[in-house]
Amino acid sequence: MKLPTTFVIFFIFLLFLASPAYGIEKQHYPCKDFVFYFHDVLYNGKNAANATSAIVGAPQWGNGNLTVFADAFRFGYTAIFDDPITLDNNFHSAPVGRAQGMYFYDSKKIFNAWLGFSFVFNSTQHKGTINFIGADPTTEKSRDISVVGGTGDFFMHRGIATIMTDSYEDDVYFRLRVHVKFYECW
Amino acid sequence: MKLPTTFVIFFIFLLFLASPAYGIEKQHYPCKDFVFYFHDVLYNGKNAANATSAIVGAPQWGNGNLTVFADAFRFGYTAIFDDPITLDNNFHSAPVGRAQGMYFYDSKKIFNAWLGFSFVFNSTQHKGTINFIGADPTTEKSRDISVVGGTGDFFMHRGIATIMTDSYEDDVYFRLRVHVKFYECW
Amino acid sequence: MKLPTTFVIFFIFLLFLASPAYGIEKQHYPCKDFVFYFHDVLYNGKNAANATSAIVGAPQWGNGNLTVFADAFRFGYTAIFDDPITLDNNFHSAPVGRAQGMYFYDSKKIFNAWLGFSFVFNSTQHKGTINFIGADPTTEKSRDISVVGGTGDFFMHRGIATIMTDSYEDDVYFRLRVHVKFYECW
Repeated sequence: MKLPTTFVIFFIFLLFLASPAYGIEKQHYPCKDFVFYFHDVLYNGKNAANATSAIVGAPQWGNGNLTVFADAFRFGYTAIFDDPITLDNNFHSAPVGRAQGMYFYDSKKIFNAWLGFSFVFNSTQHKGTINFIGADPTTEKSRDISVVGGTGDFFMHRGIATIMTDSYEDDVYFRLRVHVKFYECW
Repeated sequence: MKLPTTFVIFFIFLLFLASPAYGIEKQHYPCKDFVFYFHDVLYNGKNAANATSAIVGAPQWGNGNLTVFADAFRFGYTAIFDDPITLDNNFHSAPVGRAQGMYFYDSKKIFNAWLGFSFVFNSTQHKGTINFIGADPTTEKSRDISVVGGTGDFFMHRGIATIMTDSYEDDVYFRLRVHVKFYECW
Repeated sequence: MKLPTTFVIFFIFLLFLASPAYGIEKQHYPCKDFVFYFHDVLYNGKNAANATSAIVGAPQWGNGNLTVFADAFRFGYTAIFDDPITLDNNFHSAPVGRAQGMYFYDSKKIFNAWLGFSFVFNSTQHKGTINFIGADPTTEKSRDISVVGGTGDFFMHRGIATIMTDSYEDDVYFRLRVHVKFYECW
């Protein structure tokens, strides 16, 4: 086959227009994705041995009590956590990593949280970390936060994590299902 | 027109050198930009009904009082907020979204803050979130923070937000003008 | 030299496959890198003049005391800092910028922290900011966090920062060596 060179140039030019270099078309399907669960057991004054998170900040109206929420939607209550990550929704499954960071409630009118945390993996399957931040309007069935970076196996990755509350019990336990979708892999 | 193939190859090679793939040239003009204002009314012990933010952490020298700042530059005072976003600088304009997150003051010598927050939109105009972090040296007229990710309409976007203090009143109210400039759109 | 056009097309096609546009190959060597040190002097109740950081949050079991850690691994203790950055490991060297942000300890069983902070530069050498988040398992000699964005000289940069504890003294002072490696420059 022999094509006219002019055609070749035009074809190449079209390819360039379509390339991310020119911001016109980027893939909207993940280059990698994973589903994980993590389990949060909040310190309530009686469960020191089992708790994986604790309130460390609260507004004035909490009167310095960090084990009971002073109001319905927990505005301002800030928790630090080190939660086990599992591959299924069973709290007793072997952890494959740790979810470490903070969340705080940030609405006076509904259940709304904000998250800043990392997934930390150090197993034969995954080594490295994934870093997340974003708003978590917990009353919505499914919500998206940003995957802002990664290290190790997830070197420089970016993406979106879709979060669902998989279980919620007695103000002490919740389980989140996290669908990590990387759209930028390296 | 018929060009020598050698020339074509050379031309293509130059195009590649100029492409982000090789980190040499990226566009420095926004692919999208917006101006928003958000309004912060800090809880001072008397304005529970109107307050949109509250101090939830302070250093030891604050003696547990989270409604009065113990020192001039508020070092260590940490606030959680859920502030209305408007399109103009009028506090009474209809909100188009919420700015949700935290700020804390982090200097003993000047007014300096650090921000971690999201813009949350759920209207016909915008659906999705934009996530921000960065240093906010409030004594400078204009300062830049990072737009580290987005979801929904702002899927995977990155950029810079230029922040200006548009109003500041009596330790209780401030209004920020936020010029969100996306340089990476998807 | 005259190559068959078919060959040219095939060659161009290969180049495209290798381009980041198609997520297959991205450079894993930094486009820029720097080594910095920053110095943290934690407020302990007696060093108000020298302290560069202060605890602003702690769990209930800390009983409101923010100058003494209630347990071995400091779970939940949250510090705000404004630390000098130097080019070498000497605390008395002239600062070239400030590291501003927060860290908190997030494990009940080992020394583990989480970081959210910015490097702020305003000198003839560097003007701009670099924004970081990530898990900091301080018991490991070297650990990686994400560089999630930058402004000014570091406009839109992304990368990895490799952190090492360069010194640790008496619960009051630590020095971190930070190797900032940008893999995405603009």
